[in-house]
Parts: sequence; C-alpha cells; structure tokens
Amino acid sequence: MTEATAPRRAPRSRTVPSLPPGPPVQDGGDWSTWPTYEAAALGFRNFWYPTVWASQVGSKPYPVTVAGERIVLIRDDAARGVVRALHDRCPHRGVPLSLGRRQFPGTISCPYHGWTYGLSDGKLRAVITDGPDSPICGKVAVATYPVAERLGLLFVYIGDVPAGQGPPPVERDLPAELVGNPLVLGGRTDVRAGNWRFAAENGFDEGHAKYLHNTALWRLFKVMPTWNVTRVVDRDGWIVRVQDELHWDATFPGVGTFTNKRWWKRMPLPDRPGKSPKANPVIAGLDLPGFVSFRLPGLLRVAYPQFIHYEWYVPVDADRVRYVQLMVRFETGWRAQLFKAKYLAAIRWLFHGQFTAQDAWMVDVMDAPPERLYRPDLSITALRRHIEQAGVTIQPTEPRRGH
Amino acid sequence: MTEATAPRRAPRSRTVPSLPPGPPVQDGGDWSTWPTYEAAALGFRNFWYPTVWASQVGSKPYPVTVAGERIVLIRDDAARGVVRALHDRCPHRGVPLSLGRRQFPGTISCPYHGWTYGLSDGKLRAVITDGPDSPICGKVAVATYPVAERLGLLFVYIGDVPAGQGPPPVERDLPAELVGNPLVLGGRTDVRAGNWRFAAENGFDEGHAKYLHNTALWRLFKVMPTWNVTRVVDRDGWIVRVQDELHWDATFPGVGTFTNKRWWKRMPLPDRPGKSPKANPVIAGLDLPGFVSFRLPGLLRVAYPQFIHYEWYVPVDADRVRYVQLMVRFETGWRAQLFKAKYLAAIRWLFHGQFTAQDAWMVDVMDAPPERLYRPDLSITALRRHIEQAGVTIQPTEPRRGH
Amino acid sequence: MTEATAPRRAPRSRTVPSLPPGPPVQDGGDWSTWPTYEAAALGFRNFWYPTVWASQVGSKPYPVTVAGERIVLIRDDAARGVVRALHDRCPHRGVPLSLGRRQFPGTISCPYHGWTYGLSDGKLRAVITDGPDSPICGKVAVATYPVAERLGLLFVYIGDVPAGQGPPPVERDLPAELVGNPLVLGGRTDVRAGNWRFAAENGFDEGHAKYLHNTALWRLFKVMPTWNVTRVVDRDGWIVRVQDELHWDATFPGVGTFTNKRWWKRMPLPDRPGKSPKANPVIAGLDLPGFVSFRLPGLLRVAYPQFIHYEWYVPVDADRVRYVQLMVRFETGWRAQLFKAKYLAAIRWLFHGQFTAQDAWMVDVMDAPPERLYRPDLSITALRRHIEQAGVTIQPTEPRRGH
Repeated sequence: MTEATAPRRAPRSRTVPSLPPGPPVQDGGDWSTWPTYEAAALGFRNFWYPTVWASQVGSKPYPVTVAGERIVLIRDDAARGVVRALHDRCPHRGVPLSLGRRQFPGTISCPYHGWTYGLSDGKLRAVITDGPDSPICGKVAVATYPVAERLGLLFVYIGDVPAGQGPPPVERDLPAELVGNPLVLGGRTDVRAGNWRFAAENGFDEGHAKYLHNTALWRLFKVMPTWNVTRVVDRDGWIVRVQDELHWDATFPGVGTFTNKRWWKRMPLPDRPGKSPKANPVIAGLDLPGFVSFRLPGLLRVAYPQFIHYEWYVPVDADRVRYVQLMVRFETGWRAQLFKAKYLAAIRWLFHGQFTAQDAWMVDVMDAPPERLYRPDLSITALRRHIEQAGVTIQPTEPRRGH
Repeated sequence: MTEATAPRRAPRSRTVPSLPPGPPVQDGGDWSTWPTYEAAALGFRNFWYPTVWASQVGSKPYPVTVAGERIVLIRDDAARGVVRALHDRCPHRGVPLSLGRRQFPGTISCPYHGWTYGLSDGKLRAVITDGPDSPICGKVAVATYPVAERLGLLFVYIGDVPAGQGPPPVERDLPAELVGNPLVLGGRTDVRAGNWRFAAENGFDEGHAKYLHNTALWRLFKVMPTWNVTRVVDRDGWIVRVQDELHWDATFPGVGTFTNKRWWKRMPLPDRPGKSPKANPVIAGLDLPGFVSFRLPGLLRVAYPQFIHYEWYVPVDADRVRYVQLMVRFETGWRAQLFKAKYLAAIRWLFHGQFTAQDAWMVDVMDAPPERLYRPDLSITALRRHIEQAGVTIQPTEPRRGH
Repeated sequence: MTEATAPRRAPRSRTVPSLPPGPPVQDGGDWSTWPTYEAAALGFRNFWYPTVWASQVGSKPYPVTVAGERIVLIRDDAARGVVRALHDRCPHRGVPLSLGRRQFPGTISCPYHGWTYGLSDGKLRAVITDGPDSPICGKVAVATYPVAERLGLLFVYIGDVPAGQGPPPVERDLPAELVGNPLVLGGRTDVRAGNWRFAAENGFDEGHAKYLHNTALWRLFKVMPTWNVTRVVDRDGWIVRVQDELHWDATFPGVGTFTNKRWWKRMPLPDRPGKSPKANPVIAGLDLPGFVSFRLPGLLRVAYPQFIHYEWYVPVDADRVRYVQLMVRFETGWRAQLFKAKYLAAIRWLFHGQFTAQDAWMVDVMDAPPERLYRPDLSITALRRHIEQAGVTIQPTEPRRGH
C-alpha cells in the first residue's frame, strides 16, 4: 500500500512533496522488482567510501577490503605523509602487498621478491632481486585508489577515473553540513556480519526501532513511540522519513497493550529536528522534514536538535559490512570538549555500542528474500526505489585479480 | 547371499516366517537399488518424531530442527501450558522467531518488528510497530506443527495435515507396549554427527556390536558372542532380527582365535527376550522372536527380559541426527525407584554414554556408498527393503523458507 | 626473455650446456602453457614419496595422506616388523582402517565389524563377526602400497605396479649420493598449507631468497647477494641453477640502494659447491655447476661445500603439502656426532625452522594464476618445462574410494 492511495496517511499541514507513486509494498517474493538493488551485493562503483581512522594508518601497510576490492593503505613519506591506497595483490605471484614494507621512500615492496611499486602511481619502479636493469620495470603497475582524509577517516574512491581526470571531490559524497562548519565528533568503524543492504535497510527502516530497541539502555530515560504514520520524501538528494503521526501506546484487540512509556522516562523529540527551540543553528538550518535520512552510496543521517548521528554501510564482501558510526555536534570551545567527554563516557558504549549492536544482531540473522513486507516498509521500498532511479553503476561481484 | 538361498541358514525349529526374498546383498556399488532410501537424506513425512524433553521447554522459545525444518517450541500460557511448535522463521524478513519472546499471552513476537503470532494457529494477530489497524493482520501465518507430550518427550508431527482433520494419533508412532502399561524410564536426547540413515543402520546392524563394543564397560561382566546366524522376520509392523545360532568363540584359519569370554564374565541372554523364566510379563507378552526390532520412521527396540532399550534416529539435517535413547522398565513402586537410581548411577554413563558413543563414532566416520556388504548385512538390506515397501513420503531436501 | 636470446647473459667461461630454448617467460595469464603442470594438483603417479619417520610407526596404525590417497601405515609383526601401507578405507562401509588395530599377527582389523586384512597383501583374511566360514573372505582386498625405509624415512610408492612385477627400486627416486655413501643427517617432516607446486616453485625459485630471507637468523653472519644472473642447465636428470653473475649490492635509480652486506657478515659461498678448497669429497665429486637442483617428483637439493640440504614437496591434497627437510653431511665418527649436536642445537631451529617458515608463509599466501613472471623466473619456467618434457603420469584429483 503506498501513501498515495492511503487517504488517512495524506500529508496534512506539511508542504513536503511525497515521492511519486512507485511499485506497491510487495507481498512476499523476491527482489526482482529492484534489479539494481538485487545485483548490488557489493554495492556501487564511483563513490567515496569511508574505511578506517586516519590515525590507524602509518608507515606500516594496512589492509582493508572495500566493495570486494582488497586494498592496502600506507602513508607516503615522499609526499608529506599522505595516505595512499593500492590494490593489495602483487601481480607477480599474487602475494598481498600489505605483507610487505616501505623498503624505500615513497614505495612499497612485496615481501616475496622485492617488487617495488611507487605509492603515488602504483608503477613498478624497481625489482630488488632482478637488478637495476630489470626489463620489467615500468611495464607493470598495480591499481591505485584515490584517498582523502576527512572527519578523521580515510575515504577511498572505488570507481573508474577517466584518464587525465581526477575523481569527483570527496565533498560530493559527504553530507553538506559536514563541509565547512566547525564541528566535533566521536565515532567507531568496525566490520560486522551481514550484507550491506541489510544494514542499510535496517538503518532507514521505519518499523523496528520501537520494538527491537525497547530494551536499549540508550533509551532508558526517553520514551519511544509504539507506532507511527510515516511518509518518505525527497530532499536535496536524500530521502527523508516524515512522521505524520506518533502513537505512544496501542491496544491490540485480543492481544494486549504495548507502550514504551514509564514513569521515569521523559517524552522526547519534537516531530522534526529543527522544530526544537533549542535546536543547533546548523541543524535547524537544514530544515529537515524528519529525523532520518538516507542517501547513496549507503549513508544514514539521524538528526536530533543538538547533534546528528551518521552511519555508513560500506560493503566489504557479500557477507560483511563495514559499519562507520559518527556522532557530530556543531560546537567549538568548552562545549566541544564537554561533548568529547560525554562521548567517551557514555555515548560510545550506550549508543554506538549496545544500541547498534541490537541492529547488528538482526542484520546478521536476517534471511531474505523471500520476504513479506508491511505498511511501515514503505521506507524500505522507498530506499530501493531511490537506488533504482539513481542510475548507479553496480560493483561487479567477481573479484579483481589481475593488474 | 540371501537367507532363502543359503540352506545352512534355513529356519529349523522356529515358526517365524522369514521375509520374502528381496534383492540379494549387494556387492559394492551405490544405493540405487533402494531409491526411496537413497533420496531420504532428511527422512520421511507424516510421522511423529521425538525431540527434546518436555521439561526443557518453558516460556522461553526453544529452537529445534527436525527433518530439516526449523521449529520453535514454546509453552502456551493461554492454553494451560501446552507446548506449541511453529516454523522458526518470521515471514517478514526471515528472522528466527526463537530469538523473540512471549510478549503477550498465547503469542510469540518476532524480536525485530514485533510481528506477533498466535501460538495455537500461527496466525499473525498483531504487529506492534504498525498499530492496531495494521492491515496485514490475519493475512499472514507461520506454519504450525502438532505437538504431543509422551514419555516425558515432546513429539512433533512432520507432515501434511488435511484441512479439517488432525494428524494421526501419536500412539500410532509409539511402540504399543509404551501405551497404557505402567512404566519407569531414563533417557537421553542429543544431536550427533552423521546422517540418520547411518545411525539407523548401525542400530539394526547384526554384525558390529560383537566387535566394536568388545571393549565397552557396559559389557564388562557379560559375554558377547563372536558371530551369529541370523534371520530377519516381520512382526506387527516391525522387522525383527532372529538369532538362529550363537557362536561364543571362533578360530579363523591362519589368523587366530577370537572370543569375548573371560573368566569373570557370565553367559548372557537366552535366545529371545521372553524365554527367560524371570522375564517381565509385559515383555514376555510381546512374544518377540528376537532381541532387536526396527520400525519406521527410525525407531530401534532392544528388548531384554526385564527392560527394553529404545533408540530413535531423528533426522536433523543431512549431516546430523538427533539420537533419543530410552531405557524402560515396566515396574512401579520401589522397583521403579530402584531403577531410577540405577539409571542415574550407572546405566546413563555406561550404556547411554560410553557404549553408544562407540556407535556415534562409527556413524560419524562411515563413508558409503560405495560399500561392500557381507552376510550379516542382511539386517541392513532388510531395513532398506522395509522402507522401500512401506510406501512412505520422502521429506524434501530443499528447506522450507516461505510461509 | 630466455637466456638464449639475452646476449648479456650468455655463458662465458662455463661449458655447461643450457636448456634448449622453451617458451619465453610468460606475461601474466594462466598455466595453459604447461598442461601437465596445470593438471597436477595432486602430483604424479609412479614415484616414491617420503612420508613420516620410520620411528613414528609401530604396532598402532598411523594415517597419512599422500597425493590425495589416504593410507594407513603399520608395522607387520609377522614379517620382522617391516612397515606396511594399505588404503585407509574399509570397503565394507568406508570406515578408516587406521581407527582399528592389529587384532591378530600380520593383520589389521576394521574397528566396526572386525573385517581383518592381511598386512602384506591387503586381502580379506577373516571377518570376526561372520564366523570362520564367511564366504566373503578372499573376495575383497584393500589396495596396498610398496613401502621402503631409507634415511630414517618411510617412502611410499604411489603408482601402478604391473602384475607379477614389483615397483622400481626406491633408489631410483633418491639422490644418487645418498645411496652407498656414509652419512649423517638431521631433518623434519611436517604438513604445511598450500599446494605442492607453490612449494616446489618456491624452492627452485631464483629470485626470492635474497629478499624474503634477508631477515632470517640463519643468514645473520653470511651475506646474501642482491641479484644474480642465472641459467638453468640439465645435469643427470636434475635441473640445476647456475649463477653466472652475483651482485652483492645494487642501486635502483630514483629508488635507493639495497644490500645484505653488513660489517659483521662474512662473504659467503664460492660460485659452485665443489669449488671450495674445503669441499667434502662426496660433494665435490658431484661436480655440480650450481648450488640448487631440482628433480621429479618434487625434490630440491641445495648443495654447500660441506653439507647438502634436501627438500621434498609431497602432495597431500590440493591445499596441503608435506614438507620433508633433510640436512646431510657425508661424515662419520666424531665429525658426525658433532654435526648431530649442531643440528639439534641450531640448524633445526634456525634453518629448518625460522628460515623455511618464511617460505611456508609465502606458499600459503601465493595466489596464482594469474601471474606476471620476470627475468629470474626462468627457473620456474624451466621447472615447469622439465615436468612437461618428462612424460609423467598425472595423479587423478578424484579421490580413490572403491576397493
């Protein structure tokens, strides 16, 4: 059932346009309605993906897998210490370069025979065990990947860079509010079980939080609704969940009553982040019609009046996802310091720990298709439609092996 | 070589009819002679199978897998605490219901979005996160399975129940002597490595016990024969191994002599359980022509003059079998209490422990076909023929996933 | 590029003939140029392979896998204790005979039903649980394998032995210098990760040692070259790496300088083992044109002036290789005793331990094809060509299961 055909869900006072009507919520079946989505077990090409913290990578090679591509990260001492990313496979006999070392400045050497590649361009610059006149030098190269350091994270560009051009600016794939505004952040980046699509759907999913997270310590003092009436709208390249109704309790005939209200919990959130009189000016300026937004290639934004939580779902392989969580406040000075202390003392463990571990649990055990969607899953079908309409390039599931 | 063509094995004084001649013992090769058996990696449909002890299941969901079907067991507080069995997969996104809880009386709720199913009929009765008017209620159901509590065990019916009818009574699939007679029992139920067919064949196998269990503590004080002359006969839906000759020792020309006799061991068993003057009246009344019987779907009965040992081989998946062992005496009062004490003090560890662990070892390492059968394997070919002639329905090996 | 077409690599003063020109070093691609090699994931038939130490096998069955064949080794008390090798699978139901025991002299009995095989011929001589007149005796046999005890190791012949003949003498597959000369040895035999071909290529590989083993304690006091000019020649059924030039350091333009020289290291080896004035007479008598030789089915010889190191790469299965290392000195008396002490105190840990563990690390992570060979890989292509031209029989990759 789509919103367009459900009168009781029609927008009332809000002027946000709804998405055009798409395929209705599916009753069971497979994912053939969303062929791009179905094929994208390893995500999409031509995007910047966050990986590990910049502080984790130094002069020792650091292996990561992004969208099925095995990559070695290492700092280039011949270029003011910027981080470089190369395909983590020596073309000679397939040994991972990340097992090697920075034998000479600005290079990485395979541990096996000393094939030595320039960090900036991946070109084979020397082969230690074949002497200075080695005829293979200059004829072999490993693929390189553009790297950018933003928000303390290393972003890697997975895609095709036309000859003579660079990749798009990393800012294209960052939330605009994270570019240029003073901010302070805390976060986590780790690899979890499950395909990235289950993680992304779980993130934008309208339905689960109110039941799955009912027991989360993070919500110990704040009530969560029992059910909502929701729409999804387009806004600046994001899709946004708009809550038209919030129901704090419900009685199910013949079954029982459910509510998350307790005497010690306070009523929470206004119906959109900017509505709070105490809203942070940057967040209020976003004029978001709802709390939760999603955009490609797999980024969730949960905006509260005074802070924003971001989650990236970065494909690792078909069975694992890198889960990058950031909590951001647009503050400076002592307020920023106070947030850092609160992050380390509580948020890191309660929200980025126990709360999202409940999500990780579900992402791990989910087993679809087949599936049988329900009314709140209009958020999930909107996400899939968003992807189908975006004209993205699917990352092939056959791993890169050659050079 | 079959018994019908082996004059020296012809029945002598016994009147029990032999099985009609079937295919001879196979020399090597595959199982194509027994197509039903060959296809039944997950066993047969339309039978009651024992699972776990009734005392193991309470208000918390308990997952079991039977014949490849993932099932959640839980007590229904809205129906005097009877145990219910439902397919352990929420049709919404495939999350196991056994990870959820009994949120409301008489229901189970998926932990993810609170889809809430009636325990008695599996129907979707409420969806917590979609409000009381959720249009999907009543349109979705998970499969339910008939459950019966007998002998302290939870029996689950795997099969097709025609609309408006119930399953056959569980008593149909129980040994008749276990219905109505006062009795006392001890037992174990656990999951072991190996396909159920290897376990069943091992159970009814004429040959192995006398050599494999030669070292078992359970037989420390009782001699086992070295080899027997055996027939298999039909009796009341069971096949029964009849020993026409028992040989307590043997000398193999050019090889050596073998016997299990020792000065401290006493000679055992008469040649059938009812023949002993001290035989229990219930057991004597069975008038069994031999000690060991087998029947569908995978039940072994080893009858001694004063007690009976039962083993069920319940398919879990193609590589695992649930092994349910029961030791039963038809006694009451202080004799029953004495048996319970003896069971806990010795039988549980010696017979249901070390002795059958030797069987489990073989079931795990067996690797057939190809195979090369020998004379005592007429018990195994009789078992396979029994199955081929029974007109059973094979459980499909493709797992149930939809709703 | 082959040596024949590379003028600067032409032999100068040496008279050793080079190999005839073969296919050039391949640029990437697969192994289809070497079809025998490509198909030989389990090695070759009709060769003797070393397995475990003779001292490891006694009256208890000992399982090994050689070239994909599961074999049980056991001493035959009816034949002066020689070691026998039988296919480790009872044809009855597929139980490994190595789980059984030597129930009677000169036999092995399956633990399940007591099928009892003669150790010398594998013939079924008795079936304990079927009595002395068991009709199957004499009609079933398990395959046997010729075994020879040499150098303290048990060699097993994997191949076809024509009726009425024996296998070739084990001496055919031993280095000639190990037959007849007095010698003393130390060694190790263990199973490692990786296919045997990667281990063999690593062994004969011209290129890697000088860089991979740069950090090995074994070379703490001896300089290794940086790069060499090399040829491969045929010599008495072996292929031998001949060093035409040794370069102790090299400066790579724009990259840096590399050398293994340190003030505390002494310059090593002459350019061939027999050239040293202190060379052992047996080793000098080999008149080897280079230090490293290889021969079928997978044997490496690294000859130094006073000792020789041998490595056998014995296929276990497609993913594992048995790595047999021997260090041999042709000495007797107190010199031999001194070597034994030195082996146990140092060589075992430094050379047969840490040094070759670096090789094991590479064999484990190698991932080819695709591959991109370079100039020193003429040793690897020579090895492959040696195999292609040898007219060997490929061991099938389908495991033996029948009897």
